[in-house]
Amino acid sequence: MEIKRPYLMFLGDAPDPLAAKTAYGVAYWRPDWCVGQLRLPGCQADLKLKDMTIAEAQGAGVKTVIVGVANRGGVFSDVWVDVLVEALERGMDLAAGLHGRLRDVPRIREAAERCGRALFDVRHPTRVFPVGNGKKRTGKRLLTVGTDVSSGKKYTALAIELEMRKRGMKADFRATGQTGVLIAGSGTAIDAVVADFISGAVETLAPDNAPDHWDVIEGQGSLFHPSYSGVTMGLIHGAQPDFLVMCHEPTRRHVRGLPHYALPTLEECIEANVWAARRTNPAAKCAGISLNTWQLSEADALRTIDEIENRLGLPTVDSVRTGTAKIVDAVV
Amino acid sequence: MEIKRPYLMFLGDAPDPLAAKTAYGVAYWRPDWCVGQLRLPGCQADLKLKDMTIAEAQGAGVKTVIVGVANRGGVFSDVWVDVLVEALERGMDLAAGLHGRLRDVPRIREAAERCGRALFDVRHPTRVFPVGNGKKRTGKRLLTVGTDVSSGKKYTALAIELEMRKRGMKADFRATGQTGVLIAGSGTAIDAVVADFISGAVETLAPDNAPDHWDVIEGQGSLFHPSYSGVTMGLIHGAQPDFLVMCHEPTRRHVRGLPHYALPTLEECIEANVWAARRTNPAAKCAGISLNTWQLSEADALRTIDEIENRLGLPTVDSVRTGTAKIVDAVV
Repeated sequence: MEIKRPYLMFLGDAPDPLAAKTAYGVAYWRPDWCVGQLRLPGCQADLKLKDMTIAEAQGAGVKTVIVGVANRGGVFSDVWVDVLVEALERGMDLAAGLHGRLRDVPRIREAAERCGRALFDVRHPTRVFPVGNGKKRTGKRLLTVGTDVSSGKKYTALAIELEMRKRGMKADFRATGQTGVLIAGSGTAIDAVVADFISGAVETLAPDNAPDHWDVIEGQGSLFHPSYSGVTMGLIHGAQPDFLVMCHEPTRRHVRGLPHYALPTLEECIEANVWAARRTNPAAKCAGISLNTWQLSEADALRTIDEIENRLGLPTVDSVRTGTAKIVDAVV
Repeated sequence: MEIKRPYLMFLGDAPDPLAAKTAYGVAYWRPDWCVGQLRLPGCQADLKLKDMTIAEAQGAGVKTVIVGVANRGGVFSDVWVDVLVEALERGMDLAAGLHGRLRDVPRIREAAERCGRALFDVRHPTRVFPVGNGKKRTGKRLLTVGTDVSSGKKYTALAIELEMRKRGMKADFRATGQTGVLIAGSGTAIDAVVADFISGAVETLAPDNAPDHWDVIEGQGSLFHPSYSGVTMGLIHGAQPDFLVMCHEPTRRHVRGLPHYALPTLEECIEANVWAARRTNPAAKCAGISLNTWQLSEADALRTIDEIENRLGLPTVDSVRTGTAKIVDAVV
């Protein structure tokens, strides 16, 4: 099930840019797919795309309207529904990464059925996955992992895919979260899968491939995060990564959302993730470290990158400031 | 939601005792709750309980009919449905640990609604769980873990609950699998929870309690099992165990169902599980080892128990042959 392109980004009445962070992620990584944005009165987000009505989007050949904004209190307002129903009636599909489901809104579901259009609730996998079997698959795999949630795992994986493709390598970003799925046009929000099928879902997401093909798999959570470690563990075992890239936000002082939990050190976090990965791929190793240094000045960021690279003896980058070339060099 | 007692055990037309293993587990651990069994023609299972019709069960005060048998191909035959509908009409609830759901059988759902009876599909949690928060809870907790699936985790936890209660300790078995839920009358089949909520579901299952109260939590899967390690990891973090008991089947040569995976050694398995547990309870330690030696002669079993106890320096038992007193001694 691939989400059809190009996209119109629906920003609704986003109260601030953060509410539209999914839309920003898609527009940043897939500018060629995003031909316009639709903003309702009061919208405080702006992707700097051409503002379009649904009719104009139809004229521009839009195939899918991406609901790239959090809806307030999980509720779809009538104004939203009017716009989204018009999109269905004008022949476009809808895709959303919300907690609530498009198909649970009666007018939207009814319009989709009547018009024969698809609804992609990417946070709610509907397909059935097999139980993981741990069998060795062909092709190469790289998985981003992290010392915490929100440490740059998606961004780093996308940057590595980009770097690999620039070099003419066969590489596909494999999305495991809702924003990633909208960026890739396919994938599975792995945290929404039933627990017994986590590793099986990842095996399905990154199946046998050509020996020189790279799956660059988006990581989730952290082995050290008391809320999400189960997702991370199943993801690592299902991914069978040849290489891990450890993502880290160097100014963070405790686990995000859990001030009573200290972050692990990079050393212990690498050791634990490599240990877990070797269960399904005995050759697994850490290829390098990707720091998210947006909170630091350029000088402090570069100094931190140097310090960590020297301390750990592993290629260390910031996907934004330095690019990921050093890590791709290390894995090829 | 507590399943009401006493139970009538419905064995259907089980082709062999293995098909009724859930029923055997409930009848073994909760003989006082099981007042009879109902077997259809051809049934090859026998719990040695009084055979009863639904009308006789009603007369005996049965509150819930337990569907303790795997249905062939996941299908409910008309004969099954006739019996189960009669039970609803005579005022009993139904509980089942099947892959298919009672409430998905139209005649059963309709009868339950008409008669105001409850349907417990214990393999399909319907409630919403919070995301785990890792906050320290009061009370004591013991979690069984294993070198593999089917290594005696449920049996050991139930045997420890029994031993603790014999000593007058406050102890509750906390069920995390479908048979366990039917034995406890409550609990959560943790492998059926959405991945993001594994640890949160366990936090809910074993909440704050009196300082001298023990939650004896049923383990699932294994950190070394490529199919289920995510469930195990989330379960360990959510349980915050003070003590782990490592369960092991000493004749097993590879991971059950995955001949391409060797079992971990007891030493590495204990180290990994204690490491994981210490993330949410820094005082966690391994209290002992519980061997499932049913495949060995009495002499070989006792020799194996001795050997492992001497090698690891930890109390080692077989829940059936020796009881769990040595482990309970170690934790008090």
